[in-house]
Amino acid sequence: MSLSEFDTISQYFNSAKLGFSRSGVSVGIGDDGAVIESPQGAPISMSMDLLVEGVHFPVKAEGRHVASRALAVNLSDLSAMTARPLCFTLGLSLPSLDNDWLEGFSEGLSSMAKRFDCPLVGGDLTRSPAGTPIVIAIQVHGYHLDNAPVLRSTAQSGDGVFVTGTLGDGAIGLCSLGLQSHLGSSIALDLAALSEEHRAYLSGAYYAPEPRIDFALAAASLMTACIDISDGLVGDLGHILAGSGVGATVNSTLIPYSLAALAHVSLEGRLQAALYGGDDYELCFTAPAHVTEQLYRIAASHNLGLQKIGEITPGSKLRLLNGSGIEILSHNQAYQHFAPRASGQ
Amino acid sequence: MSLSEFDTISQYFNSAKLGFSRSGVSVGIGDDGAVIESPQGAPISMSMDLLVEGVHFPVKAEGRHVASRALAVNLSDLSAMTARPLCFTLGLSLPSLDNDWLEGFSEGLSSMAKRFDCPLVGGDLTRSPAGTPIVIAIQVHGYHLDNAPVLRSTAQSGDGVFVTGTLGDGAIGLCSLGLQSHLGSSIALDLAALSEEHRAYLSGAYYAPEPRIDFALAAASLMTACIDISDGLVGDLGHILAGSGVGATVNSTLIPYSLAALAHVSLEGRLQAALYGGDDYELCFTAPAHVTEQLYRIAASHNLGLQKIGEITPGSKLRLLNGSGIEILSHNQAYQHFAPRASGQ
Repeated sequence: MSLSEFDTISQYFNSAKLGFSRSGVSVGIGDDGAVIESPQGAPISMSMDLLVEGVHFPVKAEGRHVASRALAVNLSDLSAMTARPLCFTLGLSLPSLDNDWLEGFSEGLSSMAKRFDCPLVGGDLTRSPAGTPIVIAIQVHGYHLDNAPVLRSTAQSGDGVFVTGTLGDGAIGLCSLGLQSHLGSSIALDLAALSEEHRAYLSGAYYAPEPRIDFALAAASLMTACIDISDGLVGDLGHILAGSGVGATVNSTLIPYSLAALAHVSLEGRLQAALYGGDDYELCFTAPAHVTEQLYRIAASHNLGLQKIGEITPGSKLRLLNGSGIEILSHNQAYQHFAPRASGQ
Repeated sequence: MSLSEFDTISQYFNSAKLGFSRSGVSVGIGDDGAVIESPQGAPISMSMDLLVEGVHFPVKAEGRHVASRALAVNLSDLSAMTARPLCFTLGLSLPSLDNDWLEGFSEGLSSMAKRFDCPLVGGDLTRSPAGTPIVIAIQVHGYHLDNAPVLRSTAQSGDGVFVTGTLGDGAIGLCSLGLQSHLGSSIALDLAALSEEHRAYLSGAYYAPEPRIDFALAAASLMTACIDISDGLVGDLGHILAGSGVGATVNSTLIPYSLAALAHVSLEGRLQAALYGGDDYELCFTAPAHVTEQLYRIAASHNLGLQKIGEITPGSKLRLLNGSGIEILSHNQAYQHFAPRASGQ
């Protein structure tokens, strides 16, 4: 049975699960637009991401997984702005209406939306031609009540460079699903050797990255610049450096890895995944030296790993050092969607 | 030459043409999110539309045309909320980077953005697999400084039903491009008989509908409910009726048509296009009888046609009358993207 657009929205999206009420949202789904009122007139941050089937998530992936990933990567952008989630909108272009997929998608969204008190307030549902990929557009909105937005362009020479959590799990997680990242075979994960626990951890790292909202809000006033790691450390720290007009020195041996990555991926593979893999959605931020201890205490109080991996320097260069302090040269780049691709990748 | 995502954004989107400064926009393109500050903490309306190549605009349509249509239909949603444009975000999923197409797309967006003082503040650019349709997600943001949002759910029995401009031109305009609307052959436009002037008018009605922002702002305080006509009068007035729990009687002979529609399309074809065609992006709104003259004066001062076509009634039924007051029955429906399609359409 084919459901009309309105019935589908009503059944799967305009529900108490997703369209729940929240202060600051005056008009939700069902009109020409949503209406929000920012608490105390606070500034609003917003970020939009597109996810295309076969590009940003595997073809035929379950709706539930696709949904949590789609909302999480957007909430991660809010955390990188140090914004408090307010609401989100959803544009969904589907080649067909698969009720099972939609049911899972709606539940996956709902779970993430409720955890971050971030209801669905509007959007658009449309049918794309048969055989074309699912396209998901999500825009999240957050507000800044007690802390100003932390940008990419305000890092200072002498600041420390910090990362939350562990790096490389996004790309390794994609490999754990039996798929290749754009890094090709350089991660070299042996699927047969993966324990169930590590397999679950790694696929979770890919499908349900944890937006670092609480830590970002608690640490915002101590940060000088912040970004989330969606394209790999080199690319994303590179955005901070370019935006701020500074350089950085990073000690590659200080990059934190998960137990699963340590158990199953070579040092070189882990480093490739962390530097160039992307999809980690951890925070990379800078902060002056005198707040380092305070930052570690905040991270510990949120049960979140935090690691200082380097320092901001004058100039514009990112220098990556090995354990002996020797610079690691690399011709790899961060993932760029339109970069020419090497054959076979 | 292939441009990377960042270069492309920089060259075509992060430009003075599109990323121009505007009060209320604190952070534009280039960070994890945009930051806006609503003037005087005013409520913010926002609306997202997806446009899929081959569904919402013709395959291989020029970038310039696609852009003006994509932004105009979103600004039309803001007009239906009676919001003042503030800024927009853009998600663009492209199977390839065609510099000519992007150049035209950027210029078409810029022209519309500047007219409505509504800069681009962020978004996402991604590559979709080769051979898949272009998908465009646009979200517009507006604010309510002197007038509250006008919703669909607040029409009152006894109100007049008004429409701006002329109806049916969107669907007839699609036919003028040599394409069939979902109404199939019922419009029966003779392309060979079209004058250049009428052809230009009709294709313009399709590709560059005029968002009725100025009129909406001027008339907002007099309206009781408002919607824009994207799915045809029957469907969109139907949303007002359902949302408000009322009925309506519409005199079909009062529906206003353009000179081009009058010259080239039969009465029956025009009526079908107006009732069920969609893509008109005119406003349909309700207002109490005593403000009718005031509304006509406001419309005249904006050089905009305005027509009272009926009245809100108790009950829940939409009654369409012909010139003799006899009810016109019809089995057609408004365009629903996921409705089962008749074969051959």
